[in-house]
Amino acid sequence: MDNRTGLPVVGMVGGGQLARMTHQAAIALGQSLRVLATSADDGAALVAADVQLGSHDDLAALRTFAKGCDVVTFDHEHVPGEHIRALADDGVAIYPGADALIFAQDKLAMRRRLGELGAPMPRWREVQSLDDITAFADETGWPVIAKATRGGYDGKGVWVLRDPAAAQELVATGTALIVEERVALRRELAVQVARSPFGQVAAYPVVETVQRDGICVEVLAPAPDLDPDQAAQLQELAIRLATELGVVGMLAVELFDDGKQVTVNELAMRPHNSGHWTIEGARTSQFEQHLRAVLDYPMGDTGLTAPVVVMANVLGGPEGGISIDERVHHLFAQEPGVKIHLYGKQIRPGRKVGHVTALGSSLADTRARAARAAHWLQFGTALPENEGDPA
Amino acid sequence: MDNRTGLPVVGMVGGGQLARMTHQAAIALGQSLRVLATSADDGAALVAADVQLGSHDDLAALRTFAKGCDVVTFDHEHVPGEHIRALADDGVAIYPGADALIFAQDKLAMRRRLGELGAPMPRWREVQSLDDITAFADETGWPVIAKATRGGYDGKGVWVLRDPAAAQELVATGTALIVEERVALRRELAVQVARSPFGQVAAYPVVETVQRDGICVEVLAPAPDLDPDQAAQLQELAIRLATELGVVGMLAVELFDDGKQVTVNELAMRPHNSGHWTIEGARTSQFEQHLRAVLDYPMGDTGLTAPVVVMANVLGGPEGGISIDERVHHLFAQEPGVKIHLYGKQIRPGRKVGHVTALGSSLADTRARAARAAHWLQFGTALPENEGDPA
Repeated sequence: MDNRTGLPVVGMVGGGQLARMTHQAAIALGQSLRVLATSADDGAALVAADVQLGSHDDLAALRTFAKGCDVVTFDHEHVPGEHIRALADDGVAIYPGADALIFAQDKLAMRRRLGELGAPMPRWREVQSLDDITAFADETGWPVIAKATRGGYDGKGVWVLRDPAAAQELVATGTALIVEERVALRRELAVQVARSPFGQVAAYPVVETVQRDGICVEVLAPAPDLDPDQAAQLQELAIRLATELGVVGMLAVELFDDGKQVTVNELAMRPHNSGHWTIEGARTSQFEQHLRAVLDYPMGDTGLTAPVVVMANVLGGPEGGISIDERVHHLFAQEPGVKIHLYGKQIRPGRKVGHVTALGSSLADTRARAARAAHWLQFGTALPENEGDPA
Repeated sequence: MDNRTGLPVVGMVGGGQLARMTHQAAIALGQSLRVLATSADDGAALVAADVQLGSHDDLAALRTFAKGCDVVTFDHEHVPGEHIRALADDGVAIYPGADALIFAQDKLAMRRRLGELGAPMPRWREVQSLDDITAFADETGWPVIAKATRGGYDGKGVWVLRDPAAAQELVATGTALIVEERVALRRELAVQVARSPFGQVAAYPVVETVQRDGICVEVLAPAPDLDPDQAAQLQELAIRLATELGVVGMLAVELFDDGKQVTVNELAMRPHNSGHWTIEGARTSQFEQHLRAVLDYPMGDTGLTAPVVVMANVLGGPEGGISIDERVHHLFAQEPGVKIHLYGKQIRPGRKVGHVTALGSSLADTRARAARAAHWLQFGTALPENEGDPA
């Protein structure tokens, strides 16, 4: 407890945008997020009052950080499981625990466990050798998707293998892999739930996530044209996974939809890009919900605040052009109702540096407004008429 | 500009809850509010990364603070006008300027200026001596309302004078005063606008403010049963005042409604308690809007996010009872859709320590939910059934 306020102190390992936005949510709850950042320039370190510098893989730093925290949680999945166990053995309340987080850290462990639970998945195979890939491809046909079991994100650690030669080249790198069939995607979906130590689970509406080059660029909430029964089934799946895996905090279940079947792609156990729309678009943001969950507070209302919510990521654009401050001016003039979130990051091409959220009643109009706003921030120019309109 | 982000640095003089909530809004805009706090335990100092300790009436401290700020603004009205002028003379962009802020600092100056502008006001008189009060009361009848021209807030600096003896006692204190007729109040209203240096003005919906013992306890947005034409006239009045007075930033116009006429009670030139509902209840919160205004960004959408929004203040309750953390638990269990905002303040009876916001479609239901939530936080007990229901 913070003696000054009588309210709990949550420590978050990692100082990126998720910690930054969690700090915003913590302020409303009377708290001040404690952040373990690797650099004073990290997005969260720029805005939080209680920042410690140190690495997430340094157990001594983690132990110092945890002192005085009521709960420790994460803005990424990179804290080694043995460190999480060591802290838990010290008596630190640390969520999600190592036994749950492994399923977000290790794709092989996740596929095996989801198999045991009978969760719908693409066909997949553990890779020990090149033969495993070619034998798998004999069953599914080329190309196949290879994934590093650890450390992948935003399209990194994922390879489309078109033939045995490509497979051989990848296996030769020594990367630990699994291989999956290439799903004939109609679209990608995601569903988020929050679970508390008590066991309460709250589910958000299912959303559609639009990817480009392996990076999420747009989230549509709720997922358009999704059968309500199927939406409920997907929420139930996510609730079951959170419960069976013992997740505490936010769980994002990323899903493939091939038009016939929806299968689980990946899991994330933290606030997630697919839930940034909740800041304005849901009665309780995923950041507040994550805090409520790890603190074992009752969960907040996950209802939508508008019929349609669209989140568009802002990636770093090409160098040059008008300043970011001028881009904000122009965007605000064009779209007074769109909300922006800038993460305080150095802008590098392709890096997620912020997002925008638009609310409305028409999907096409709301999507176009979000696209125009993201375009201003990314490129410093107006999106030509009609280009923001989805085909 | 902050070299790390390319975005502006706004400095706010004063570290209370207004600065605390402005920092939350600044984070989304890619900024980190710089705060001049009097104590490291101030609500904003607990959560902001960039805090300087110093007094708002120390010009040297203000000058140090202003260095590197793109704009300086205020969380209260207590910075002396001569210091604001000195900073402006130094070349600091400081908003609102001294020539505008005087009308929020000095009730005599405000009444005179509003008289020149023909704004509707209660009858009032400058007080030089006891005779001024008694002569005024001969016209209006007793009781009359005496107000300190400077430094009043939350019912402090306001006296109901029932007879010449009470007037004599007050005049003997040497407090600079004005006297006003006691308005036969049907209710109080407020309207907020934001104005930028460019001159753009954005108006929020007119709200009803419910006072108890001179302290605002509840805000209903939009004001129930207000004629749309009258609402538009009040917004136009606030826009005209912001423009004529040269306000930059948020302006709150507090209003008396006697059922026949609406008159101006007070002005505040900063984010204001009557606008806390905008955090969840309007597309752009008053805190973001204040930042946009002082930075000369285009204004954001002021539209409502729900048909009915109710904000209830949380005052410090009696000592004892369950802890504030337990109160949050119980409130969240009972009202999963109500949003809370705790200011990190030491709890003292009657002090504003937080607020709650409920959104809905029925006024009675939304009001009752807000009342129940505020009661949990203030008293640590459930509000008995029906008591939250306005008569």
